[in-house]
Amino acid sequence: MTHVDVAQPILAVNDRLAAANRARLDAAGVVMVDLMASPGAGKTSVILATIAALGARYRIAVIEGDIASRVDADRVKAAGVTAVQINTGGACHLESAMIKRALDVLDLDALDLIIVENVGNLVCPTEFDLGEHAKVMILSLPEGDDKPLKYPNIFQISRAVILNKVDVAAAFNFDRAAFEDSVRALNPTAPIFALSATAGTGVDAWCAWLEQLIPAHE
Amino acid sequence: MTHVDVAQPILAVNDRLAAANRARLDAAGVVMVDLMASPGAGKTSVILATIAALGARYRIAVIEGDIASRVDADRVKAAGVTAVQINTGGACHLESAMIKRALDVLDLDALDLIIVENVGNLVCPTEFDLGEHAKVMILSLPEGDDKPLKYPNIFQISRAVILNKVDVAAAFNFDRAAFEDSVRALNPTAPIFALSATAGTGVDAWCAWLEQLIPAHE
Repeated sequence: MTHVDVAQPILAVNDRLAAANRARLDAAGVVMVDLMASPGAGKTSVILATIAALGARYRIAVIEGDIASRVDADRVKAAGVTAVQINTGGACHLESAMIKRALDVLDLDALDLIIVENVGNLVCPTEFDLGEHAKVMILSLPEGDDKPLKYPNIFQISRAVILNKVDVAAAFNFDRAAFEDSVRALNPTAPIFALSATAGTGVDAWCAWLEQLIPAHE
Repeated sequence: MTHVDVAQPILAVNDRLAAANRARLDAAGVVMVDLMASPGAGKTSVILATIAALGARYRIAVIEGDIASRVDADRVKAAGVTAVQINTGGACHLESAMIKRALDVLDLDALDLIIVENVGNLVCPTEFDLGEHAKVMILSLPEGDDKPLKYPNIFQISRAVILNKVDVAAAFNFDRAAFEDSVRALNPTAPIFALSATAGTGVDAWCAWLEQLIPAHE
């Protein structure tokens, strides 16, 4: 049996398209953030809370990545924001070519911020540059404080870590200090934002961090 | 650019090794179950509850799949059961070749049941036959009732669906009827076991189902 390393050429093609996406966003003065998390960690809820906090001051669009369905895009559109749904048809992550097609249907000159909601998965999205300016991850408190030990890569590459669903902390044994120590051992510089997207607590600090990524427009 | 379908040959090799694993298990009279779920859905807790319920009557071993760490294998070993840790080193799912190496270090003639804990991921493990006799999935209630719409394949291929963490239902908006309707639309025959692995409620029905898969030994 011959072994062929198929990952490297696929990633090289992806990275070239990602660089083109990023150049296109930079030319239009748009910042793009790739939001990654497990299924059900609250990606869409965090996006809705972010829109509620920043939507009056910035022009925001959302690119929704799902294997199937358009549930999330419908939720975002109901919040009054442009949403493009990508159905990967089975693929476990977004790639830069999918994002290119989404950018093609957006009016970049009329935007300040694009939030990409990746497929729910702590592993595969970490390998694919989409052309974003920052990857950000969400861990939800019910997933447990040991996740940095089991899924180290996503914690290492994220520019910020959101700990969501802190409103239900009383129902779970989650050691916040142990979690934060594990994150800092993997990634000493990423801020950790503890928040509840549905209760609205802690969202301000996350949005202040996100806001400083958005380029000033004259 | 030439497009090559690399998935099909990889899956064909995987399926051949999976068939060999299954034949080997059948010859030894051992049943193997592949447990799949998101990160933090409670796979290890369900395994520990299963060992507590069935461990006195059946000889059980656990194969733990993780990208990194041996946290889960240590938890299982503390329950007095043989555990083999597989670290995938980045891979988002287990494959049959990894399971073969784990079977090599187990004494199959001294076992009735092997539970495989796959990498936390609702997508990638669905494509890989490991040689198991049944794939079973866990959704945890905090992940939300819309997951069958977004990750249909795992619900379709699972022989049984466990809904875990029902003890915290009061803290979440989870529509149990909508969830069960969505599961049944994708998979009319799979039983749905609502339970709390940590509280110990509902574990009996799941274990009774699992027990009927175990071959009788003379």
